[in-house]
Amino acid sequence: MEEKGISEREVLEALKKYREMDLKYENGRILGSMCTKPHPISKKIVEMFLETNLGDPGLFKGTKKLEEEVIGMIGELLHNKNAFGYIITGGTEANLTAMRAIKNMKNKNAKIIIPETAHFSFDKARDMMDLEFIKAPITKDYTIDVDFVRDYVEDYKVDGIVGIAGSTELGTIDNIEELSKIAVENDIYLHVDAAFGGFVIPFLDERYKKKNINYKFDFSLEGVCSITIDPHKMGLSPIPAGGILFRDKSFKKYLNIEAPYLTETQQATIVGTRAGFSVACTWGIMKLLGKEGYKKIVSECMENTIYLTKKAKEYGIESVIEPVMNIVALKDENPKETCSKLKKHGWYVSICKCVNALRIVVMPHVKKEHIDEFIEVLVSLKS
Amino acid sequence: MEEKGISEREVLEALKKYREMDLKYENGRILGSMCTKPHPISKKIVEMFLETNLGDPGLFKGTKKLEEEVIGMIGELLHNKNAFGYIITGGTEANLTAMRAIKNMKNKNAKIIIPETAHFSFDKARDMMDLEFIKAPITKDYTIDVDFVRDYVEDYKVDGIVGIAGSTELGTIDNIEELSKIAVENDIYLHVDAAFGGFVIPFLDERYKKKNINYKFDFSLEGVCSITIDPHKMGLSPIPAGGILFRDKSFKKYLNIEAPYLTETQQATIVGTRAGFSVACTWGIMKLLGKEGYKKIVSECMENTIYLTKKAKEYGIESVIEPVMNIVALKDENPKETCSKLKKHGWYVSICKCVNALRIVVMPHVKKEHIDEFIEVLVSLKS
Repeated sequence: MEEKGISEREVLEALKKYREMDLKYENGRILGSMCTKPHPISKKIVEMFLETNLGDPGLFKGTKKLEEEVIGMIGELLHNKNAFGYIITGGTEANLTAMRAIKNMKNKNAKIIIPETAHFSFDKARDMMDLEFIKAPITKDYTIDVDFVRDYVEDYKVDGIVGIAGSTELGTIDNIEELSKIAVENDIYLHVDAAFGGFVIPFLDERYKKKNINYKFDFSLEGVCSITIDPHKMGLSPIPAGGILFRDKSFKKYLNIEAPYLTETQQATIVGTRAGFSVACTWGIMKLLGKEGYKKIVSECMENTIYLTKKAKEYGIESVIEPVMNIVALKDENPKETCSKLKKHGWYVSICKCVNALRIVVMPHVKKEHIDEFIEVLVSLKS
Repeated sequence: MEEKGISEREVLEALKKYREMDLKYENGRILGSMCTKPHPISKKIVEMFLETNLGDPGLFKGTKKLEEEVIGMIGELLHNKNAFGYIITGGTEANLTAMRAIKNMKNKNAKIIIPETAHFSFDKARDMMDLEFIKAPITKDYTIDVDFVRDYVEDYKVDGIVGIAGSTELGTIDNIEELSKIAVENDIYLHVDAAFGGFVIPFLDERYKKKNINYKFDFSLEGVCSITIDPHKMGLSPIPAGGILFRDKSFKKYLNIEAPYLTETQQATIVGTRAGFSVACTWGIMKLLGKEGYKKIVSECMENTIYLTKKAKEYGIESVIEPVMNIVALKDENPKETCSKLKKHGWYVSICKCVNALRIVVMPHVKKEHIDEFIEVLVSLKS
């Protein structure tokens, strides 16, 4: 840091130059991210709430009320008026929080079954919390092998099960209804990672639903104890806005840490100081869009997903599965190589781990014209 | 959530009403928070960087470059050009990250000495990570008892030591130089929590320094492995902006988790998706203010701290210690009761845990006129 400061104009001009080195969502080159351009109303809300801190909720009672209402709204969307939870920094903190609940509720060295398709935030949880993860295999439709889970809990004492509603790699939905039955019968904690799918599945038009998939994933299933659902993914909120919802307030006691200097005496979130604008944006965008608005956005993404899949197929590029939500996995023998070639041409896709494929998330910023251009480049690289 | 959305105007008007229920920093009633109104330039920078995500740095190369430069600037401030680290969500994530490093570097069930004055984020670390914390007593000046630490490491195998530069309760500075010697001699990891003090101590004018205090706390001391330093406290950045800095890049390997879907293949932060604006704001505010700007702010806070201490004394209210930085602890026989009475009059202080006292953080939003009003109310409540 220099001794003397520079002017505001100089600072902003310099920052503009750095910002120009970033990719922009609106250019449609970001095809592998679960984030997108936040809804335009966000900027006004962020400005209004920038100084608020939900780590000290007694100081920001209005913002805290908004959080309670947001949790109420999301809880209702997930069929549970009694849901309890927080808007936190993202899916990782949400999944860590659920794992912390299992650890403190069930067993310090909890044994937890997670599907092979689980997000790497669970690796962080294991690394930090000394949990024992049993990786359940996935079936041919890339969802958790429920028979394996059923057999395993018969033979061993299990503390937790994780199901995924919208897997990171393929957007698949585990059979949460069956997992819920197993959880209830065996008194096991069931956590659902719907970080991505939580703002997709409830808004999915019937015409996009497939007969062989069970779309039930939420608190309407008796065994579901907690759900990760991220407003900053398909909820269109700005970062940081993750969501963790528990079935009811009784779970709070497993998370409480004494907070002597604050206006609340027990803090349940992992992170302390917390951006209040995240809550205000989520509240505002949910009120602004309503269910109709989210349905429209999800339908547009699904249309573009189908468009991309069809177009790729016309060029002989097959999808791994018929997309369940707005994530497409295109078969590719050398996905790493193709990914890196695409990058050189300015296109950013990512790759799957469980199958040789390119992974494309068709977020709201991805339009048909981007898909056309992308397929053209992809085909040219392959020929 | 309703089926139909409402208009942008209606959303913003409704949000305004909630916002009015919050306290505002500028009214000077928030006297117990380590956060403050972010620097005015923040709003423009947040707007420019709102969509950026440092969880996927290959997409936001300009913002990532800003983060490297910010870590460089803070590293230099802490006398280490090779520092490695991240701007993360806050002091809690920073302290958790350091504890994770000790755990993975030294011992899965690491034994760590922390002072009794340590922030409750360390309780979160223990709760999540199964660490064994040895609470070192504090001496009569409310800093860690170095003799206890020295004796303890002679008798037992210890993996880590935590020292505090700006304790939450009293703003005291542990004798980090002595802790550093002990750490080096015994091959122990030393972490310094300077979440608050990191943006105070380097800018403290000589006239505010006390002879009996060792102000050395940073990487100039050989044993210091990592430092928590929060831009969103005295750095004037908006939330979320915490900082974790390691001595060099060699510490990254203890934090890496494989991140298959992202533009970086190994992620070292606990949180995944990360707000890029936090970095841009920190960069911008540091460039705008320069060292001179921060010195001016710290001096103003120290003047107001001295003013508050003197004024209280005039009314017979003694301070626990002569303030080391801009935190005042006023002796009070029933701090909980006084705190709650003050709250009823609209004043929000907090209380100490290690001593019967009210705790006031004299942040930049606390002005002399607020102090005058506060003392008047406090005195009236006591008489």
